[in-house]
Amino acid sequence: MVGATAEPHHGGRHLVENLTQGYEGPIYPVNPKYSEVLGLKCYAKVSKIEGPLDLALIFVPARAVPGVLEDCVTRGLRGVIVQSGGFAEVGPEGKALQDRCLEIARKGGLKIWGPNCMGLIDTSKRYVFSFIIPEAWERSMNPGHVSLIVQSGLLSASFVATVMADKTLGLSKVCSIGNKCDVEETELLEYLLKDPATKVIALYLESFVHGRRFSELAGSADKPIVVLKGGKSPLATEAAASHTASLAGNYPLIRGVLKQAGVHQADDFFEWVDVARALEKDFYLQRPPDGKARIAVFSYSGASGIVTADHMDRHGLTLARLSSRTLERLGRLTPAWMPVKNPVDYYPAMEKHGPALAYKHAIEALLQDPQVDGIIAHLFAGFGIWSLDMKEILSGLNKPCKPVLFWLMGPEKRRESTRLALEEEGWPTFPEIHRTVKVMASLFEHGGTKRGLRKRSSLEFQIPRLLTKRLQPSDETGKKVLDEFEAKKVLKAFNLRVVKEVTTKSLEETLKAARKMGYPIVLKGVAEGQSHKSELGLVKLNLRDTDQLRSAYRKMLRVKMKPKSFLVQPMLRGDLELIAGVVRDPQFGPAVMLGLGGVRAEVYKDVAFRLAPLNRKDVFDMLSDLKGQVLLKGYRGSKPVNMENLADWLIKLGWLALKFEMIHEIDVNPLLVVGGEPVAVDASMILK
Amino acid sequence: MVGATAEPHHGGRHLVENLTQGYEGPIYPVNPKYSEVLGLKCYAKVSKIEGPLDLALIFVPARAVPGVLEDCVTRGLRGVIVQSGGFAEVGPEGKALQDRCLEIARKGGLKIWGPNCMGLIDTSKRYVFSFIIPEAWERSMNPGHVSLIVQSGLLSASFVATVMADKTLGLSKVCSIGNKCDVEETELLEYLLKDPATKVIALYLESFVHGRRFSELAGSADKPIVVLKGGKSPLATEAAASHTASLAGNYPLIRGVLKQAGVHQADDFFEWVDVARALEKDFYLQRPPDGKARIAVFSYSGASGIVTADHMDRHGLTLARLSSRTLERLGRLTPAWMPVKNPVDYYPAMEKHGPALAYKHAIEALLQDPQVDGIIAHLFAGFGIWSLDMKEILSGLNKPCKPVLFWLMGPEKRRESTRLALEEEGWPTFPEIHRTVKVMASLFEHGGTKRGLRKRSSLEFQIPRLLTKRLQPSDETGKKVLDEFEAKKVLKAFNLRVVKEVTTKSLEETLKAARKMGYPIVLKGVAEGQSHKSELGLVKLNLRDTDQLRSAYRKMLRVKMKPKSFLVQPMLRGDLELIAGVVRDPQFGPAVMLGLGGVRAEVYKDVAFRLAPLNRKDVFDMLSDLKGQVLLKGYRGSKPVNMENLADWLIKLGWLALKFEMIHEIDVNPLLVVGGEPVAVDASMILK
Repeated sequence: MVGATAEPHHGGRHLVENLTQGYEGPIYPVNPKYSEVLGLKCYAKVSKIEGPLDLALIFVPARAVPGVLEDCVTRGLRGVIVQSGGFAEVGPEGKALQDRCLEIARKGGLKIWGPNCMGLIDTSKRYVFSFIIPEAWERSMNPGHVSLIVQSGLLSASFVATVMADKTLGLSKVCSIGNKCDVEETELLEYLLKDPATKVIALYLESFVHGRRFSELAGSADKPIVVLKGGKSPLATEAAASHTASLAGNYPLIRGVLKQAGVHQADDFFEWVDVARALEKDFYLQRPPDGKARIAVFSYSGASGIVTADHMDRHGLTLARLSSRTLERLGRLTPAWMPVKNPVDYYPAMEKHGPALAYKHAIEALLQDPQVDGIIAHLFAGFGIWSLDMKEILSGLNKPCKPVLFWLMGPEKRRESTRLALEEEGWPTFPEIHRTVKVMASLFEHGGTKRGLRKRSSLEFQIPRLLTKRLQPSDETGKKVLDEFEAKKVLKAFNLRVVKEVTTKSLEETLKAARKMGYPIVLKGVAEGQSHKSELGLVKLNLRDTDQLRSAYRKMLRVKMKPKSFLVQPMLRGDLELIAGVVRDPQFGPAVMLGLGGVRAEVYKDVAFRLAPLNRKDVFDMLSDLKGQVLLKGYRGSKPVNMENLADWLIKLGWLALKFEMIHEIDVNPLLVVGGEPVAVDASMILK
Repeated sequence: MVGATAEPHHGGRHLVENLTQGYEGPIYPVNPKYSEVLGLKCYAKVSKIEGPLDLALIFVPARAVPGVLEDCVTRGLRGVIVQSGGFAEVGPEGKALQDRCLEIARKGGLKIWGPNCMGLIDTSKRYVFSFIIPEAWERSMNPGHVSLIVQSGLLSASFVATVMADKTLGLSKVCSIGNKCDVEETELLEYLLKDPATKVIALYLESFVHGRRFSELAGSADKPIVVLKGGKSPLATEAAASHTASLAGNYPLIRGVLKQAGVHQADDFFEWVDVARALEKDFYLQRPPDGKARIAVFSYSGASGIVTADHMDRHGLTLARLSSRTLERLGRLTPAWMPVKNPVDYYPAMEKHGPALAYKHAIEALLQDPQVDGIIAHLFAGFGIWSLDMKEILSGLNKPCKPVLFWLMGPEKRRESTRLALEEEGWPTFPEIHRTVKVMASLFEHGGTKRGLRKRSSLEFQIPRLLTKRLQPSDETGKKVLDEFEAKKVLKAFNLRVVKEVTTKSLEETLKAARKMGYPIVLKGVAEGQSHKSELGLVKLNLRDTDQLRSAYRKMLRVKMKPKSFLVQPMLRGDLELIAGVVRDPQFGPAVMLGLGGVRAEVYKDVAFRLAPLNRKDVFDMLSDLKGQVLLKGYRGSKPVNMENLADWLIKLGWLALKFEMIHEIDVNPLLVVGGEPVAVDASMILK
């Protein structure tokens, strides 16, 4: 423990104290200022220690870290956790210092965890390799099966202290990875996926170091994974710039990628662990017939049932239609004047027979209804007849059973004892309706289960010979923009449908081409490397006769970016504009994009992303991400989009970018839907 | 107290007990079964009581209520609170019973509060006219200045018990109005707006009995009002059908109306009171220059700052740019290697100087920065140096000051004492980031203050003589649909711009009109009462010559709904389709609608409503409700919409519907924007 001290309130003291209170092997404090720290012999440097060494924890000022690392290398150490701050997270100078540390470590065969982190907590072994205050865990350590990987000190200290003290969450490992200059989320995820003590993995990440590897691991994982991504918005990205030296990335893309990999997502800290602890319970999740989980809401109030339904609507859950047998069973305890329906307002039954009997009877009946996929139960932990022994009441239920989540209210003292009783028996409770609903929705998010669902596409396509030649960046600049004509040639070579077009160089050729094609036509000027043709005046739509074409041609010759050639295309009238494309994300690699085109994609941000290679399921999931998906299904009399052909487009675009690494970006905009068929009307391609 | 009993766990007992523990006037139990209840003389009927009577509380089975009411009328009583259930909320039979009660009351000059409610709690007087369990309030009554009007038993019982025990909310009156067959939210709102003990009014409503009156009261109120509307979604509306016999209404309209009236809105129960208790604090709210409140986030963590910024982005808040003076002041306590920015990660300063000094110093500095409108402070109520006396730390701050909201974490015991200390001093705390941000956004929602802001439009327009005649429903049916031609005549008479058009009756006339107008033209068939002309094949766009027009004309003669006449219009090419109109809401009266037209209005639900009469501010607020508002400002080179003329459209549509009660609906779709000018291309009008 390098940087050990006995100074009160100092991290270097906490580290030693935390070690002595759990770790059973030998502990060597290191600090040249002391000969002894908290009763342990203290060493001047790591290399002076005689015994075998597994790991060094380093908590000294940043500028002193390189020297310590060199000493560790000398001593033959294989691993260190650097908990000190003052590295890449504070700016370029810190980044340089961090790079120096990494260089020393790489040369010396040393692995660095951190810097700027709070190390590792392993609850089952009581290993606390962290400068967390000892009081925060000593009496409240709450072992369980959720492991955390976090890029944040708060989440590995005050947050963990809070959830442990509240016994909200059973924890296995807490890995605080800070600037993750060497050890990063992917290798820890890989470890935890194999760790028998871990059932659910929850990550707080601001960036993904090896995005593609992360998505592959998550996509084939048999344990639920919950991610809270920090820095989703432009505002937060601005804020993140200097924090843990993160690159926040392209969130709409990351959202799609995580969804594709079957990862659950959260927006706030407690929500994140609330989802994780519910996933830990091993509820039996049946697959609802049309994908919308059918929930029974069991309440002692009409209003709370309605508000629950409002939140369910937002989260894509639906109200179960109770079977007649269930209605009849529930009806047995209700007075004749009270109709039974879902949400079940069982207050009259509770008043008449007491809440204990009412809860037992109703939850049993609802669980046995095959048309109920899950139950949201409202409970008041209160006084008099509302002072319920829920352990006793629910003791008759067989497990594993369908999810039963409790929205629990009541004065704190009553609430806490009821909460703990329920949690101990595996019934999760939540203090607010919106959270209860969000967690229920998360349970059913990936079709109820995520074990080995994801099949990667293994489709292969013939590569036309012309492509190998065409898809080369030009030698001089290392970058090349394929113009509309060239880009569409490539797409066409893959049997993707593009608009008919003729390239011309003179007015005469142009007029001839138009006559042959038949009016109305579109005239486009092709200029070097220009993708904003419309803004430049290089696109004229709906030219109806020779006169109009002639005048459009002449005008184009007068624009700033004089076109080197022209394209003549028929004027297509589509029912719908889509936008499709590929981007090459620095962390995740090639990803396919589909959006509702024109202004909709930009203004309504109605786009979805998936990583290549895509399979058919990815394409359909992608469509269901679009708010305007109904437009593809034949809206207001228009022909539905040919889904096979649309899938073909997206799968091939992804495959192309995977196969040809020099493809940096493909943009098919618009991909016009004409009589149900997607046709590329314009396209561009960037090679690098 | 009719229905008094000494039976344990019975509402009739709780009512008597609650009265005896707070109310100081004479109490008369009524129940023919007893001669004495809990030490008080018990009467067989109300009419047997000798002394003067102010109010009867009634808690007997529903079927016995009419008899009790008749007896009350005989006794000359003026008011009753009927707390029994089994009325309109359970179905048609219950509704009939309720109607009978109302009839008896109306005839007898008796006012009914309820039925199916929990009456009234007045904390300052310790009046508890409710069957709430005595233990729920006796020792935890927490008087304050927030009054509730709720259409829910849960919110007037278990919820109130929870927030009182937690001392989260200082309450003044709790009015539980149940089925509100007679006393309803509007008159109670009016009372509470004048009540000196009430500073903030929070309502849970599933319906609005007198919507227009409610919006007028709220719009001119000088106290903040917070509404949680139950039944926003189709799913919940289905659930609400039988609950408290409510009509959930048209939520998109209600949302617009409440916004227009300066009402704050919430989605969940605790959120609702969290907003209310923050509004109670009398923070000083400065008006941010561009409407987006500039928030300083003060934290001990980078991650929590980033997640806060993500939520702020969602709620329209922005990160304050700290002044150089503030940066310099904050920098004094931070180590040289730590850059200061907003969100402020002050952990290094806290570590170096102790959190107490760091919080005091930083919050003072941030509050004094004129570019900071509010502060979100993160706090850990923990151990060792994190065991803070926040009362002491914040004691130097002058009040009223800008809002400082705390996100508070920590093990429950520490958290509770810190929370209570902060709340006592008027610093609201919240357990989650998302809530802290939502509440901050609510404080600034209506420009920071809502005192007397709203000015109703008092514009008047000349009514052209032709209209008085035209705007009459036909005599026979009481309903009349004005066809496109007729509807546009009305609009044109108000100087609203409509597409040029000629009505024709024969092919010859049609060809002549088209020739005069110039191709391309649009041909429409006008059939009786048809608003879905396109689907019927009665609209042909972009006819380019005589041949095309002739063929379109002939085709139309063969459709099912044979047109009685035709309209010839020029083919307009707009930059943007809008949809505008008026609906007459049963509760709120005439409301104006504006949407981004075509598929966008329907698929993206991008519409906004405001009640007529509209003023200019209403129109601009309405625009800012639209997700696609950027499209109106001149998107991608198109001309911006002429806002004066668009405002003219919306103000006049509202005025028309106010002036002519027979106007049931006006639908201008599309209202096409051509060169920046809104032009009605199609319209219809329903008179009743």
